[in-house]
Amino acid sequence: MARRQMHLGVFVLGTGNHIAGWRMPGAYDSFVDLKVIQHIARIAERGCFDLLFLGDGLAVKENDHPSFTSRFEPITMLGALAATTTHLGLGATASTTYNEPFNVARQFASLDHLTSGRAAWNAVTSSGGLAALNFGREHPPHAERYRVAEEFVDVVTGLWDCWEDGAVVANRETGQYLDFSKIHSLDHDGTYFRVKGPNNAPRSPQGRPIILQAGASEPGLDLAARTADVVFAVVQDLEEARVGYTALKSRMPRFGRRPEEIAVLPGVMPVIGATRQEARDTLDKLQSFVTGSNAAGLLSGRLGMDVSGFPLDELVPDLPLPDTSHGFARAMLSKARREGMTWRDLHNLTGAARGHWVIAGTPSDIADTLQEWFETGAADGFNILPAWFPGAFDQFVDEVVPELQRRGLFRREYTATTLRGHLGLDLPPSRFGAPR
Amino acid sequence: MARRQMHLGVFVLGTGNHIAGWRMPGAYDSFVDLKVIQHIARIAERGCFDLLFLGDGLAVKENDHPSFTSRFEPITMLGALAATTTHLGLGATASTTYNEPFNVARQFASLDHLTSGRAAWNAVTSSGGLAALNFGREHPPHAERYRVAEEFVDVVTGLWDCWEDGAVVANRETGQYLDFSKIHSLDHDGTYFRVKGPNNAPRSPQGRPIILQAGASEPGLDLAARTADVVFAVVQDLEEARVGYTALKSRMPRFGRRPEEIAVLPGVMPVIGATRQEARDTLDKLQSFVTGSNAAGLLSGRLGMDVSGFPLDELVPDLPLPDTSHGFARAMLSKARREGMTWRDLHNLTGAARGHWVIAGTPSDIADTLQEWFETGAADGFNILPAWFPGAFDQFVDEVVPELQRRGLFRREYTATTLRGHLGLDLPPSRFGAPR
Repeated sequence: MARRQMHLGVFVLGTGNHIAGWRMPGAYDSFVDLKVIQHIARIAERGCFDLLFLGDGLAVKENDHPSFTSRFEPITMLGALAATTTHLGLGATASTTYNEPFNVARQFASLDHLTSGRAAWNAVTSSGGLAALNFGREHPPHAERYRVAEEFVDVVTGLWDCWEDGAVVANRETGQYLDFSKIHSLDHDGTYFRVKGPNNAPRSPQGRPIILQAGASEPGLDLAARTADVVFAVVQDLEEARVGYTALKSRMPRFGRRPEEIAVLPGVMPVIGATRQEARDTLDKLQSFVTGSNAAGLLSGRLGMDVSGFPLDELVPDLPLPDTSHGFARAMLSKARREGMTWRDLHNLTGAARGHWVIAGTPSDIADTLQEWFETGAADGFNILPAWFPGAFDQFVDEVVPELQRRGLFRREYTATTLRGHLGLDLPPSRFGAPR
Repeated sequence: MARRQMHLGVFVLGTGNHIAGWRMPGAYDSFVDLKVIQHIARIAERGCFDLLFLGDGLAVKENDHPSFTSRFEPITMLGALAATTTHLGLGATASTTYNEPFNVARQFASLDHLTSGRAAWNAVTSSGGLAALNFGREHPPHAERYRVAEEFVDVVTGLWDCWEDGAVVANRETGQYLDFSKIHSLDHDGTYFRVKGPNNAPRSPQGRPIILQAGASEPGLDLAARTADVVFAVVQDLEEARVGYTALKSRMPRFGRRPEEIAVLPGVMPVIGATRQEARDTLDKLQSFVTGSNAAGLLSGRLGMDVSGFPLDELVPDLPLPDTSHGFARAMLSKARREGMTWRDLHNLTGAARGHWVIAGTPSDIADTLQEWFETGAADGFNILPAWFPGAFDQFVDEVVPELQRRGLFRREYTATTLRGHLGLDLPPSRFGAPR
C-alpha cells in the first residue's frame, strides 16, 4: 500500500508572512504586483505544492500587516494566476457575511473552469467588525454569522450542482445547444437567502470547487466537519494541534463523512538555516524589525480590541475578549497567560506569523518536526507561511521539500491535474441527477 | 494636427454574437473555455483594438443566446486575461443593483493593478427581472435602479480616490510601510449606501479604471454624461445613431465635462465577403440557423415579456413594454412598427445581433460605412460584434482594420500601454490630495 502523503499549501503575502519580512535583504516589498505573485506561484509549482492560498480582509487598519493594508482582491488575483499556472491549486477567501451566495458560487465555478479544476474557496465569516463599516451594516454576532455561513455554503454548493454533466449538447446539425432537462433550479428558500438558480455555467471540472475553512470555534468546527475539504489550523504546539485535529475529525461521522475527507493543514512559518545557530540568527533579525506600533496594530486586530496602551514589559492580564476576536486569538491569549508572557513577548509571537507556529532549524530539523506532526495525529500536511518572499520560500522548496521527498512523505512530481486529484478526493455527486 | 482616430472594441461571446454563430463551420461552440477567450484576445491585440468587452447577466433563460446561458463570470475571466495580454483594455460588467460598491471598487482597482492600467467597468443596472430571483429580492423599478446606480458609481469612484500617490513608502531603514496621511476615508453616508473606506489597495495605474455604460433612457444618458468614459450604443441606422450621439454629448457640459471625454461606440456586426453577394450569402446562412424558439427566447428576454405566442407571420403590434425591458428593445419595437415588420422579421433582426446594427459587404464597403458614421457625428469608434469566433473576427482584423489604417482612421500600432492612453484621456485627479 502506498504510503500516506503530506499535502502542502503556501500562504501568499507578497511582503512575507512575517509582519516585517519585506525588510529582509532581497525581499519583495509589494503585494500589489502581478510579477511577485506569479513568481511565488512558480516556486510553489516547482515544489509540487497542492495549493497556493490567499486570505482576505475587508478593511484597512493603520499599522496592520503591510500585505493586509495594500493587496489584490483575491478573486481577480486567482483569475490572473489561472492562466499562468498549470497544476497548482488556487484558493481564495470570500466572506459569507459580506457577499451574495449567487455571486460567490459563480465566481468560484468560473475559476474552476478557468483553471481546469484547481479552484478552492475559503469560506470565512469575517471576524473583523471594521468590515461592517464598508457595507453599511451592523456586524452580526458570532453565532449568527455561523448560522448565515451554514446556509450560505449550502446555497453555493447547491448552485454548483444545478447542471448535470452532458447538459451542453451543442449539436450543429439540430441547433440544440442545451438539454434543459439536465439543468435544475435550486429553489432555495431559507432563513437568510432565497435563491432560485440555476447557475449560468455548466458543472465545473471538480464537480464542486474545493472548500477551505479555518474556523476553530464550536460552530466553526461543525461547519468544517460538515462541508470543508481542507482546514487550516492555527496552532502553536504539537499537543494543541493533536487536540484540534481530533476535535474536528471525530465529529465528521456525525455528518456522514469519513475523517480522510478533510485534510487538516496547520500553518507553520519555517525559518531555515544551514545550522541551528544560523536559523536562530535569521529569526532574531526578523524579530528585531517588529516595532511596538506594527505589532500592537496587528495584535489589536486579531484580538478585536485596542491593546496598544498596555506597557510592553507588563505581564499579559486575563482579558475578556469581544465577539469580533479571531478564534485563535483566544488560544494565543491563553498561551500568554499560561507561559507568563509580557506584552513584548506576545507582540513578537504575533509579529512573526500572526499567531501561527514558528519553527527555526536546519532543513533536516524542520523535516523531522513536520514528520512528527504528520505521523502522530496532528496534521495531514501543512500550510507553509514563508517569512518573506521569494527567499524564504525558495529555501523551503529547495531544502526541506527534497528532504520530505527522500523520506517518502511528499510527491516528487504531480500525479493529478486538479486540486481534488492532489488531495485524493473523489468527484462529489451532484444533488441532482446521476453521479459522474 | 493629427487626424482624429477611431476607437475599436470587441464584444466577446465565445459562440459568437449571432445567436447561432456557433453553427458556422470552424466556429467555437463554447464560451466556457479559457483557450477560446485567450485566442479572441490575441486577435484583438493583433488588430490594435482599444478594448475587449464582456457583458453579463445574472440568470439563465431557456432558449437564450448560448453564451448567455453558459458563461464565465466576467471578473474572473478578466483576471485570466490580465496575465496573457499586454495592451488590450479589458472591460467587464458588474451590476449596480446586485453588488456591493465596496466589492466592485476593489475588484476593478485590483484588475487595474493586475493589468497595469487596462481595466474597465461596465456599470449596468441589470434590466432583467429574473436576476432578482437569485438574490432574494424584488427587482427595483427603473427609476430607482438609476438612483441607486448614481450613488453606487459615486461610491466606487470615491473609493478609487482614497489613496494619494506616494502613500506606499516601504522604507526598509525606518520600517515605515505606509504614509497614512495620504490615505483618506471616504465616509460616504447616502440614501442607499454607507461606506467608510478607504479601499485596501493603492490608487490604481489609471487613477480610476475606465467606466463603460450603455444606458439609453433619460436617466441612463444623464448617468453616462456625468460619469462614463465610453458609451456603447445600440442603434440600427445612421440617423438614430446621430440623434443618440448628440443627445449624450450635448448634456455633458451640464456636468462640467467636454464632449471629447466620452467615446461613443455603436455596436455593429460586420458580415464580410470578398463580394457583396458572398457577404449576403453568409448572412443568409447565419439567418437560416435562427429558429423560432431561440429567437423568441432571446427577443422575449430583451423585451422583458414573453412574445413566443405570437404567430410568426403576423405584423408586430403596438405593445406596452414593461419596466424590465432593455432601452434599445423599445427602439427595435418602434422600428418594427415603423417598417411594418412581421414577428419573423423581428426574430431575424434580434437573432442576428441581439438588436445591434448589422452590415454586410466587402471590406471596403464596411470601411466606407464606418468612416461615414465616424465623420458625420454618429460615432467615435465602434464596438465590433463578430457573428462567430474566431473566423468572423479574423476577417475583420485582417481585412477591414488594414483598410481603416490605410485611410488614416485607426492606429497601426499601440502608442500607449493603458486603456486610458488608448482613449486619449487624462489621468483624473483624486478628490483627495494633489493631482498626479
